[in-house]
Amino acid sequence: MSGRADEAAALDAASPLRTHRERFVVPEGLVYLDGNSLGPLPRAVPAAMTRLLEDQWGTGLIGSWNASGSHPGWMDLPRRVGDLIAPLIGAGAGEVHVGDSTSVSLFKTMVAALRMRPDRRVLVVEPTTFPTDGYVAAGVARLTGAEVRWCDPSDPLAAVDEDVALLSLTHVDFRTGAMYDLPALTAAAHERGALVQWDLCHSTGAVPVDLTGAEADLAVGCGYKYLNGGPGAPAFTWVRPDLVPDLDQPVPGWMGHARPFALEREHVSRTDVGRLASGTPPVLGLTALEAALGVFADVSPTDLRAASLSLSDLFVRLADERLPPASSGLEVVTPREHSRRGSQVSLRHESAYGIVQALIARGVVGDFRAPDLARFGFAPLFVRHTDVLAAVDHLVAVLENGEHLDPAYEVRNTVT
Amino acid sequence: MSGRADEAAALDAASPLRTHRERFVVPEGLVYLDGNSLGPLPRAVPAAMTRLLEDQWGTGLIGSWNASGSHPGWMDLPRRVGDLIAPLIGAGAGEVHVGDSTSVSLFKTMVAALRMRPDRRVLVVEPTTFPTDGYVAAGVARLTGAEVRWCDPSDPLAAVDEDVALLSLTHVDFRTGAMYDLPALTAAAHERGALVQWDLCHSTGAVPVDLTGAEADLAVGCGYKYLNGGPGAPAFTWVRPDLVPDLDQPVPGWMGHARPFALEREHVSRTDVGRLASGTPPVLGLTALEAALGVFADVSPTDLRAASLSLSDLFVRLADERLPPASSGLEVVTPREHSRRGSQVSLRHESAYGIVQALIARGVVGDFRAPDLARFGFAPLFVRHTDVLAAVDHLVAVLENGEHLDPAYEVRNTVT
Repeated sequence: MSGRADEAAALDAASPLRTHRERFVVPEGLVYLDGNSLGPLPRAVPAAMTRLLEDQWGTGLIGSWNASGSHPGWMDLPRRVGDLIAPLIGAGAGEVHVGDSTSVSLFKTMVAALRMRPDRRVLVVEPTTFPTDGYVAAGVARLTGAEVRWCDPSDPLAAVDEDVALLSLTHVDFRTGAMYDLPALTAAAHERGALVQWDLCHSTGAVPVDLTGAEADLAVGCGYKYLNGGPGAPAFTWVRPDLVPDLDQPVPGWMGHARPFALEREHVSRTDVGRLASGTPPVLGLTALEAALGVFADVSPTDLRAASLSLSDLFVRLADERLPPASSGLEVVTPREHSRRGSQVSLRHESAYGIVQALIARGVVGDFRAPDLARFGFAPLFVRHTDVLAAVDHLVAVLENGEHLDPAYEVRNTVT
Repeated sequence: MSGRADEAAALDAASPLRTHRERFVVPEGLVYLDGNSLGPLPRAVPAAMTRLLEDQWGTGLIGSWNASGSHPGWMDLPRRVGDLIAPLIGAGAGEVHVGDSTSVSLFKTMVAALRMRPDRRVLVVEPTTFPTDGYVAAGVARLTGAEVRWCDPSDPLAAVDEDVALLSLTHVDFRTGAMYDLPALTAAAHERGALVQWDLCHSTGAVPVDLTGAEADLAVGCGYKYLNGGPGAPAFTWVRPDLVPDLDQPVPGWMGHARPFALEREHVSRTDVGRLASGTPPVLGLTALEAALGVFADVSPTDLRAASLSLSDLFVRLADERLPPASSGLEVVTPREHSRRGSQVSLRHESAYGIVQALIARGVVGDFRAPDLARFGFAPLFVRHTDVLAAVDHLVAVLENGEHLDPAYEVRNTVT
């Protein structure tokens, strides 16, 4: 054990991101492997919120919509926050809009994609995606007369023919952590004349992508997972710049108007990606997210990805060594190839619910995804290799002691 | 002048709401008559945000979605906040949903209204409404094949015939402060078989309504004006309870699902008004709004309305006495009848922009609405009669000194 502890400590000491954990509030003694569901509080956020509440709202009042002194103004927040996200997704300044929930962002861009391909009427969605993506696609299809086609998750392209306007895929599967080849699928779908939308909810902040390099079309992602923007933080949307002039979204509102304060009866869209805006931007959520994104200021995408893989590699290796399927009943369902792995590892077990609960009772927070997955996220800015080791130690103990079989958990364990 | 000052002070002293101003941060010396655009910071908000950031997010992390100790859990926030708004609009507990922007809320309910009247295809909108309402209606019409019909603002019913699915009206006009007769118009539209949607953005928190008593159908309102929820606060939506089973909104998401964590592929809507939810609720904005709504806890709708009218009555009377149109060039465009007046007074002047700017320079904050209106909001919980008097004193001085004609303002004054 001491050899493993030394190795984990050495990996932490050698990481270029070793000091970044200090930028977060992580409760003492807690092993938090759920940053892929809710990122922890960045230390800069409370001060930013105090400035917002006391100086901007409390003192500046309505005038704070505009720049004044050191305050750059609320009007520009959706774009400013987008500019902080842009380097994490291979986008340029001014290309990312932030403001609605992920669901509403998906809705707007799916409708817009259908309008960019008026001669095609099929939306291809992947059935193991996060459910909202499918719900929204069905909602869009109903409104527009389009059709949802479910693809084979292992071969989405097989569903993409000349009727397909949009292939909408989640880059990293929220259940298994499996990752699609974003550039290859984008290129192949383009060859078939379809647009591609990437849901980056389980990527951005841990798995960098290069949307510009891949010549992707549309992307949407979450603000409260690896971006640490706080519960229900606004989502972001990227649209390839040359598509923006044709970006025709279905919920026109005053904040997407070229001249919002002219209060004109006809809607004239902004010329940039801010045309996705509808109502007044959610300033509290945007301000927290803006401050949270500061933790990425000096992080290179290469370091971020390397740190994430180093953590998940260690977890998989320790699971292989100490929790072989035959004795533990655990199966690593996350792909072992780096090119197909996001930033989480999921273990299948018939009592996954009980395992997750027993681990939480021991201070190791992962989460359960029905029916039988225990999911562990490795947010590379605050999770350490020593945390990975501790998590596996606790997991071994839970199984040895049968803690996961506590009758309190039985109702949701899938023991047959 | 002393007589007027004594009178204003006496009116303040006699108000049942005289102590409520203490619940807000209002900068010393500022006369803030723009609570109808951005309500001031309630004193309870910073502490609530600190609890959210430090205890719930920072310490409780993902577990804070559920109730724990004195924290009732984030999952239920949209409903809890709705329950605090309900008494201000004559709604019952569990009838109000809070979460999206006003624009997105209007979009969802307009589509839902069309689905409730499948044999009708016209949306009637009022051309002087806040522009977003018209933009959204046009967006909905384009998606659904419906038609937008602009009505005569002075007689909306004339546009309501057997083709009309929905009459969508703003209760209080954001420019003029004119108020519609909500119960009478609702009843008359119902006689013609149409549903009625009320935009309460410029009412709720200052002008109480009784949606239940009026048997209204749908209502949407703003969280950051008279409700003081902070910049970009989430909006609320009310749906008459017997319509909820037929409420079929166009952006189905996981948070409106009956079993969000079952992660099912088919969407099954919640049975309550929470079916309006799409994505994860904006917890920061909702938490601020929840704390802000505490200022209304012991306020009766009758007192609120009486206080509002007392303030606007005084403003109109002082304007009549001291700023007669012939010499001042000002025209009071807000109706003088209480039954037709919201909680603001708007003055028309060819140099309205300059007047508003000159007043701001003197510490009296109203706002300008193009092309020629100076708008003054009387939020009854923190505006005093002495503020009204001070505002008029400054207005008289601005005009006497010609401060509104400063060349810096000329570009937006409509002087011809």
